[in-house]
Amino acid sequence: MVERAVTIRDVGPRDGLQSEAPVDPQRRRELAVALAQAGVAEVEAASFVSPRAVPSMAGAGDVFAGLPALDSVRWWALVPNRRGAELALAAGVRALTVTVSASPAYSHKNVGMSPLDALAALVEIAEIAVGAPEPAPLDTVVSCAFGSPFDDVADVGVVAAMVEQIRATVPGTVTLADTTGTATPRRIAAVLKATGTDVGLHLHDTRGTALANALAAMDLGVRWFDTSVGGLGGSPFAPGAGGNLATEDLVLVLEDGGIDTGIDLDAILRISRGLSSLVGHAVPSRTSSAGRLPAFGD
Amino acid sequence: MVERAVTIRDVGPRDGLQSEAPVDPQRRRELAVALAQAGVAEVEAASFVSPRAVPSMAGAGDVFAGLPALDSVRWWALVPNRRGAELALAAGVRALTVTVSASPAYSHKNVGMSPLDALAALVEIAEIAVGAPEPAPLDTVVSCAFGSPFDDVADVGVVAAMVEQIRATVPGTVTLADTTGTATPRRIAAVLKATGTDVGLHLHDTRGTALANALAAMDLGVRWFDTSVGGLGGSPFAPGAGGNLATEDLVLVLEDGGIDTGIDLDAILRISRGLSSLVGHAVPSRTSSAGRLPAFGD
Repeated sequence: MVERAVTIRDVGPRDGLQSEAPVDPQRRRELAVALAQAGVAEVEAASFVSPRAVPSMAGAGDVFAGLPALDSVRWWALVPNRRGAELALAAGVRALTVTVSASPAYSHKNVGMSPLDALAALVEIAEIAVGAPEPAPLDTVVSCAFGSPFDDVADVGVVAAMVEQIRATVPGTVTLADTTGTATPRRIAAVLKATGTDVGLHLHDTRGTALANALAAMDLGVRWFDTSVGGLGGSPFAPGAGGNLATEDLVLVLEDGGIDTGIDLDAILRISRGLSSLVGHAVPSRTSSAGRLPAFGD
Repeated sequence: MVERAVTIRDVGPRDGLQSEAPVDPQRRRELAVALAQAGVAEVEAASFVSPRAVPSMAGAGDVFAGLPALDSVRWWALVPNRRGAELALAAGVRALTVTVSASPAYSHKNVGMSPLDALAALVEIAEIAVGAPEPAPLDTVVSCAFGSPFDDVADVGVVAAMVEQIRATVPGTVTLADTTGTATPRRIAAVLKATGTDVGLHLHDTRGTALANALAAMDLGVRWFDTSVGGLGGSPFAPGAGGNLATEDLVLVLEDGGIDTGIDLDAILRISRGLSSLVGHAVPSRTSSAGRLPAFGD
């Protein structure tokens, strides 16, 4: 794969759709494939969670069953526990994301476990990922990494300690998630100072700050961002979580700044504009409505 | 007046309401006063334009007639020409904004003049402002300063030349307006490199970039921002212009960064949440719905 200045993982088929009314697995797969065809090199296509807990993610196996093996894209799946990891690998998933939360209250709501138990489950998942015939890359996503809607993540210390523990116990990468859009450039800088910049960022736009936070993190050296086409998204377990940073919003600004993402903005805008018929409402991204920038040279 | 780290001029009663269905002058005045009571030290309360051209700005004299003279706030009015300036001063206005556009097409639509003629009108307005019994501060707002929806502002050169001409011919300050949200951090840096940072910025959030642009400009040294409570706004003469940078979005982030604006965020959120009943729809600001940040320390 070509080395990009910035890597964007589109989590639209997973995070983007998980709080929407259920969409047929075939259409979720088509969305994932369209994103890959638009040049997105990392796509989170589904999560292997209980369909009782998250009805919109039912049929993850069906989503993956029809995904083409392409050199240009890596398909990710979110798994909540050992059982989910086994199902995912059996369904042909080759890259896993796992969420652990800095917030005890959110951890209980999201995965029914304390953060400590979630870390223990993470170790089990890592063993399965590493032990697979073809070892699967593992990305551990730390949710509520910039504050918690339940007011139980008071400072950088708890996040830094969790990242340290993850790095000490499991292989793979770490992504810091701003689950309910409580990050600011000041908080981004404070957390990155503690964790280093070799992390991904998963930002939500609950307060309109996601793009500013992404650019602040880029200035500090972060090179991996989760986004969602159309700015869809939000956790069903965090009220008012707000959509993800929109893929098109980030690509628009990076492209204008001469930074290669490998992503075709026009293709993303076409996908984004088709989403309203999939989810039954307008998407949050403002770029989706406004479209490309007129030219303006230095 | 206290020296603030950043000065915010709320243009909600003017730019925020000019594209909405007409609101009674008394309620526009109450909005302006509420903003002042929330600690906003600069408020653009109305524009003295033709009510045929901009029906929502009818009754500007009535708005100003009841505005209290307070040490803590300066009330601004936008004027399009000599006649508007005379009306404004007669109505008791003591601080004037005037728009000239870098885009010929937008200039014709907005003020019915070429940019050159608008510059000539600006000189007339400046004479009236300076010649008033108590000379009125004058702020010249350059619209389409980061690109034009009519594709007739191709580069920094035309904007820089206009700013130079303004500074050479009239007294007062200059504000650069991103009338249709085509700015990016790259464009902000390029324009400021040519004009210097002793300018205000008036940003629209058409593509979700306004906050990122404001913070990029702050990093470069800009200290004056036009915003609109609730993120209302948009030019009736630029299709799809999009709302202004929301006052609460900027204050939220600056406050979290320890930067004093003098503005009470809770009071702004209360005003913002009352706007939907005034304009008949939800406001664009996401912070308005999501509210304050939970605490998160370094």
